[in-house]
Amino acid sequence: MPQFKQLRRAYGFDDVAIVPGEFTINPELVSMGLEIGPHTFDIPFLASAMDAVVDPTFAIAMHKAGGLAVLNLEGVWTKYDDPRSMLEEVASASRNEATLILQNAYQAPMRDDLVARRIKEIKEGGAVAAVSVTPMMTKKLAPLIQEAGADILFVQSTVTTARHESNSIEGLRFDRLLEHIHIPVVVGNTVGFNATLELMRTGVAGMLVGVGPGAACTSREVLGIGVPQVTATIECAAARDYHFRETGNYVPIVTDGGIRTGGDVCKCFAAGADAVMMGSPFAGTTEAPGRGYHWGMATPHANLPRGTRVHVGVNTTLQKLLYGPTSRTDGTENLVGALRTCMGVCGAHNLREFQQAEMIVAPAIKTEGKIYQFAQANQ
Amino acid sequence: MPQFKQLRRAYGFDDVAIVPGEFTINPELVSMGLEIGPHTFDIPFLASAMDAVVDPTFAIAMHKAGGLAVLNLEGVWTKYDDPRSMLEEVASASRNEATLILQNAYQAPMRDDLVARRIKEIKEGGAVAAVSVTPMMTKKLAPLIQEAGADILFVQSTVTTARHESNSIEGLRFDRLLEHIHIPVVVGNTVGFNATLELMRTGVAGMLVGVGPGAACTSREVLGIGVPQVTATIECAAARDYHFRETGNYVPIVTDGGIRTGGDVCKCFAAGADAVMMGSPFAGTTEAPGRGYHWGMATPHANLPRGTRVHVGVNTTLQKLLYGPTSRTDGTENLVGALRTCMGVCGAHNLREFQQAEMIVAPAIKTEGKIYQFAQANQ
Amino acid sequence: MPQFKQLRRAYGFDDVAIVPGEFTINPELVSMGLEIGPHTFDIPFLASAMDAVVDPTFAIAMHKAGGLAVLNLEGVWTKYDDPRSMLEEVASASRNEATLILQNAYQAPMRDDLVARRIKEIKEGGAVAAVSVTPMMTKKLAPLIQEAGADILFVQSTVTTARHESNSIEGLRFDRLLEHIHIPVVVGNTVGFNATLELMRTGVAGMLVGVGPGAACTSREVLGIGVPQVTATIECAAARDYHFRETGNYVPIVTDGGIRTGGDVCKCFAAGADAVMMGSPFAGTTEAPGRGYHWGMATPHANLPRGTRVHVGVNTTLQKLLYGPTSRTDGTENLVGALRTCMGVCGAHNLREFQQAEMIVAPAIKTEGKIYQFAQANQ
Amino acid sequence: MPQFKQLRRAYGFDDVAIVPGEFTINPELVSMGLEIGPHTFDIPFLASAMDAVVDPTFAIAMHKAGGLAVLNLEGVWTKYDDPRSMLEEVASASRNEATLILQNAYQAPMRDDLVARRIKEIKEGGAVAAVSVTPMMTKKLAPLIQEAGADILFVQSTVTTARHESNSIEGLRFDRLLEHIHIPVVVGNTVGFNATLELMRTGVAGMLVGVGPGAACTSREVLGIGVPQVTATIECAAARDYHFRETGNYVPIVTDGGIRTGGDVCKCFAAGADAVMMGSPFAGTTEAPGRGYHWGMATPHANLPRGTRVHVGVNTTLQKLLYGPTSRTDGTENLVGALRTCMGVCGAHNLREFQQAEMIVAPAIKTEGKIYQFAQANQ
Repeated sequence: MPQFKQLRRAYGFDDVAIVPGEFTINPELVSMGLEIGPHTFDIPFLASAMDAVVDPTFAIAMHKAGGLAVLNLEGVWTKYDDPRSMLEEVASASRNEATLILQNAYQAPMRDDLVARRIKEIKEGGAVAAVSVTPMMTKKLAPLIQEAGADILFVQSTVTTARHESNSIEGLRFDRLLEHIHIPVVVGNTVGFNATLELMRTGVAGMLVGVGPGAACTSREVLGIGVPQVTATIECAAARDYHFRETGNYVPIVTDGGIRTGGDVCKCFAAGADAVMMGSPFAGTTEAPGRGYHWGMATPHANLPRGTRVHVGVNTTLQKLLYGPTSRTDGTENLVGALRTCMGVCGAHNLREFQQAEMIVAPAIKTEGKIYQFAQANQ
Repeated sequence: MPQFKQLRRAYGFDDVAIVPGEFTINPELVSMGLEIGPHTFDIPFLASAMDAVVDPTFAIAMHKAGGLAVLNLEGVWTKYDDPRSMLEEVASASRNEATLILQNAYQAPMRDDLVARRIKEIKEGGAVAAVSVTPMMTKKLAPLIQEAGADILFVQSTVTTARHESNSIEGLRFDRLLEHIHIPVVVGNTVGFNATLELMRTGVAGMLVGVGPGAACTSREVLGIGVPQVTATIECAAARDYHFRETGNYVPIVTDGGIRTGGDVCKCFAAGADAVMMGSPFAGTTEAPGRGYHWGMATPHANLPRGTRVHVGVNTTLQKLLYGPTSRTDGTENLVGALRTCMGVCGAHNLREFQQAEMIVAPAIKTEGKIYQFAQANQ
Repeated sequence: MPQFKQLRRAYGFDDVAIVPGEFTINPELVSMGLEIGPHTFDIPFLASAMDAVVDPTFAIAMHKAGGLAVLNLEGVWTKYDDPRSMLEEVASASRNEATLILQNAYQAPMRDDLVARRIKEIKEGGAVAAVSVTPMMTKKLAPLIQEAGADILFVQSTVTTARHESNSIEGLRFDRLLEHIHIPVVVGNTVGFNATLELMRTGVAGMLVGVGPGAACTSREVLGIGVPQVTATIECAAARDYHFRETGNYVPIVTDGGIRTGGDVCKCFAAGADAVMMGSPFAGTTEAPGRGYHWGMATPHANLPRGTRVHVGVNTTLQKLLYGPTSRTDGTENLVGALRTCMGVCGAHNLREFQQAEMIVAPAIKTEGKIYQFAQANQ
Repeated sequence: MPQFKQLRRAYGFDDVAIVPGEFTINPELVSMGLEIGPHTFDIPFLASAMDAVVDPTFAIAMHKAGGLAVLNLEGVWTKYDDPRSMLEEVASASRNEATLILQNAYQAPMRDDLVARRIKEIKEGGAVAAVSVTPMMTKKLAPLIQEAGADILFVQSTVTTARHESNSIEGLRFDRLLEHIHIPVVVGNTVGFNATLELMRTGVAGMLVGVGPGAACTSREVLGIGVPQVTATIECAAARDYHFRETGNYVPIVTDGGIRTGGDVCKCFAAGADAVMMGSPFAGTTEAPGRGYHWGMATPHANLPRGTRVHVGVNTTLQKLLYGPTSRTDGTENLVGALRTCMGVCGAHNLREFQQAEMIVAPAIKTEGKIYQFAQANQ
């Protein structure tokens, strides 16, 4: 018998659970700060650089709430002076038209003046200004972004690696790219140990982890690409720890995509994350610009869209989402409270200790139960 | 390749089945007694300390049926002289209001006089008086409880460990706590080998096993915490056996949560349990105070509720639930008869032998079948 | 870390598939005979000893079709001169009443004269007379059965073992039981290697394999007992082969329960079976007495019923079920043709070779597909 | 304990995902050519030899699009001068009648003149003429086919092996069969390492991989036979590589069956395929003759049909299916673009490199999500 290609088993949020610890701590005694470069945040929660989630107003509100929101610099906020009518059109489109309308809307050109203006709007609100661009546009936009006073630059595409082969002579090399940027750079997305380690060695200030799992992402269907978040986080956390032992440089990793509940948040950290980045949950707050709709940044791709418009509804506030109080029992509000409580139950004083929590494979969703609930809901 | 965090596989009731034995026994020849401290019970069935399940009347009925019911001392029965109107309000609330109504109702203060009165009511009915408090309230309430004549004290929270770190100087240590209590103490809940062993060494008289699986519990969604019951029971049973070999002291373990059918009951014992504790099935008896509704004791939490009001309906009696006869074929009545029959089929004369029964991983619920049934039910 | 109780993985029909062979054979070249004691059958198909499946008329038809039907001697055919009105009552009962009606109907006493009469009816039709009794009644009924001219005796209960402990001095020992029976005895049901081997050593002529999987059986829900058929068959086949190497005596095993399609039939043999026994598929033929309904023989149990009345409909004939031709593409007709074709595809000249076919774990039912079909069916 | 029959785990498209590479490439830099004998194709996509998918007109269109379509020579295109009225009858048949109508329509005899005419029609359109026959008819039809000018001969049945035992003296041996054929022969279907290797050694020019997974195939239900495509492709690719090392002869393998999306296509190549063959997706193009319906070539089998008529709808064009542009986000259009993008993300310059991509076991379909979508769709 020959040796066949081997496939490792990977796990997502619904496949695992956290095991309580051998001693416990009062929730108010746990700490959960995040550092990215010189910036510190009270809570390790980031809002995704997606057009229906973050505009300058949201970024300021998120800063006041203790976290960090990232503004997409290649979307509607730098294409339109006022994108509100366009957002309304998306919200009122039928399911079938939505992608086409997005494809059209995103063909408008990006304007340099709006790049600068959006960054200034965030700074004037007193917030840390974090903005996002694709690797391809980074070289061109970096001077403009730094000049406008941005604090952190996110360089983000579906999959980003340290080396990218293109038609140019040497392709896109991340170490060269970073030479000209003087603010902290967070890069993503990535999922594997080696790819993460190689990017960390280029000097990035943080990494985004996750390919495929987001609610507004269909990379799995379109490309077959994707790694469930628990496994992706475990592997990238191992790269971070390896890099830290090797260099003494601790590069935080941010699990990005597919997070819906307090339970999901807790599993990210137990799997090794330093922070979580969410789209859909923030898109459902009254502060978000999306009017209850949400779409991935690969959705408007002209030729091969890899995302869908998702209806999330407007059903909470930023404050309740993060801190409660809540009467919901499905884990979709008071995410910070859930994280505190779970850390206490696991006997973790801080996130570094919580990353060591035991996890088990324990499929959460019983088909039986769900169908039962569905049947009830339809009555 | 570095070593990544490993995840063990865990199993719940629907994942496993019991394998018949190599010889068989007539069901009437099996014995199934339970001992907690000096108290003995004919059948190893306990009713959960939940407000919709156990009131003094139910406790007396359960005693007459041969088992043990535990009264929650921090719920409506010690907050209200007569909680019936409050229970009616819960029962008539809509799905969306239920949690909020529970949150409000539970803000009423606990009254010492009612603690004593409830215990006396149970004693006057001739029953063993078992009552439940949270670890935080134990020190304060223990003298009052003992003075009122309680027989067994349950100290119970979502996750209880031997050491709890709090703002006080030395936190909550279980061995210290037990010094002042002179009646048997049963503690829970727990799920792991080490945590269980450490608690057994403090001198407890029994342990409750299970975090997350109950029908009225949403810890999995809210906190990501939970261990399926078969695995939890297997591990805690190993701790009990280890402790017994080490000390000669046999501390019974009670599987608590998620049990719905005779099949579930049998699997608990085959996995190593000495007793089972149930909420939902008892909540559906005519003797229960919940009027067909049921909720977890973390549901009324003001800030982060981790439970839901579940509609179970009133569809049986305590007698039929435990002893039949029944015309139901889904395992929801005659649980004692089911246990007897299963022990016979496995050739187990008593529960200690039944704990050695072979089990296999054999997912019970075929999606196909269930969807088919669902389709039929909707016709 | 201590050693925890280990659970093996078990497989049912929907979990596995057969791998085609390295050479192939024309279907008409394969042979598939069955021998039980001195009796030989053209096709290895048995009809279950269930009251809605086999009456004397059906037994004769099955014999003409080349297989063997077994008559239940403790059911309605020995309790009533003419059970037709009782069968009509069952067929017209509502879902909720069905079990109760069955419980009542089965309380009528068994009559010795009817035992003899039913056997004679089968013999007069020219068929091999195979009849079934429970272990408890075997000693009492065996003389009567032999005297009436029965050819094969099936001794069958949910789980049958070589040793059964009862209130009598030495319990029920199978070797003693067989001393007084001079016709071949087939025993069941069993699922494990050791239990099967021990029963084979008592001198039985065949074994029935399967606990829990049948459509009309709810042992899994009620008792938690059950082993999926592929694993059960693999283990009992290993016992048969072991016993054959040890003694030179080949005891055929019959996989009994849960078989619905040609694919299921083929998997039984590929897993090691010598024959298959079916209830539901035969219950759906025009020749069956059940009027499209079907129930397990533990369903009428007065105290703890472990079966349900299943509606199968009358939708084929015995001839089409076994031999086709068919226009159905779901595998529910032409089961013999399916077996021939599959044996050909696997390069198996006979059942002994087919038992060596390779199998893989390959879950058949995609949730996605089924829900899709269900959605379509409801349109 | 004896050694029981072992079952390996097998994987289908929905069970796995592709892991992004450690470096990335611009999609326009990847190459994806296919060679079969002396013929080269721009894209490694084949259309199945199924009557609702390929007629001469479709074959010419597929050639212009850069791929290869195979015409079934034993179906309606060689039985009828003009099969359009028959296709209309199939399309308008009810679900229950469809199989019977197909069974009747396929009883018409095959005509030699139509065999020659169909091949000439394809050649006159400038396309490579690839045609398909069953092993049984190959010897008889090969001279006629070669004379008519066919370029590639596909010899295809559900399962084809190098040796087939029949009533003739030596059975059907593939090496003998190939002696008389002077054009490249592609053989299928096959799934295992040994069976594939043995066929490659007979001198075939290509192999079709896949038994059971197609949307219009019910071999799993009817025969229990089938191997999920990812595992089948991995094993046959190992045979191809082994054969290549042994002989220097590279025999391409074509994954055939069950492919619906760009993600499925990408997984075939990452598992080791050199090309993909699809039925249902092509059946849904305006160029296909099936009018939105589709059926397997074993569906019309007179005695034991093993396929169903599937409604796919007419919802795209050949051009959009292969090259886009598209507004669909479910991966059902722009399959070539998806393959290019995925190869880029995996850092693969060509298909040989892409065959080395890492894959993981990561079940794609969350029951929860699907039921949610289903619930939405029904609103």
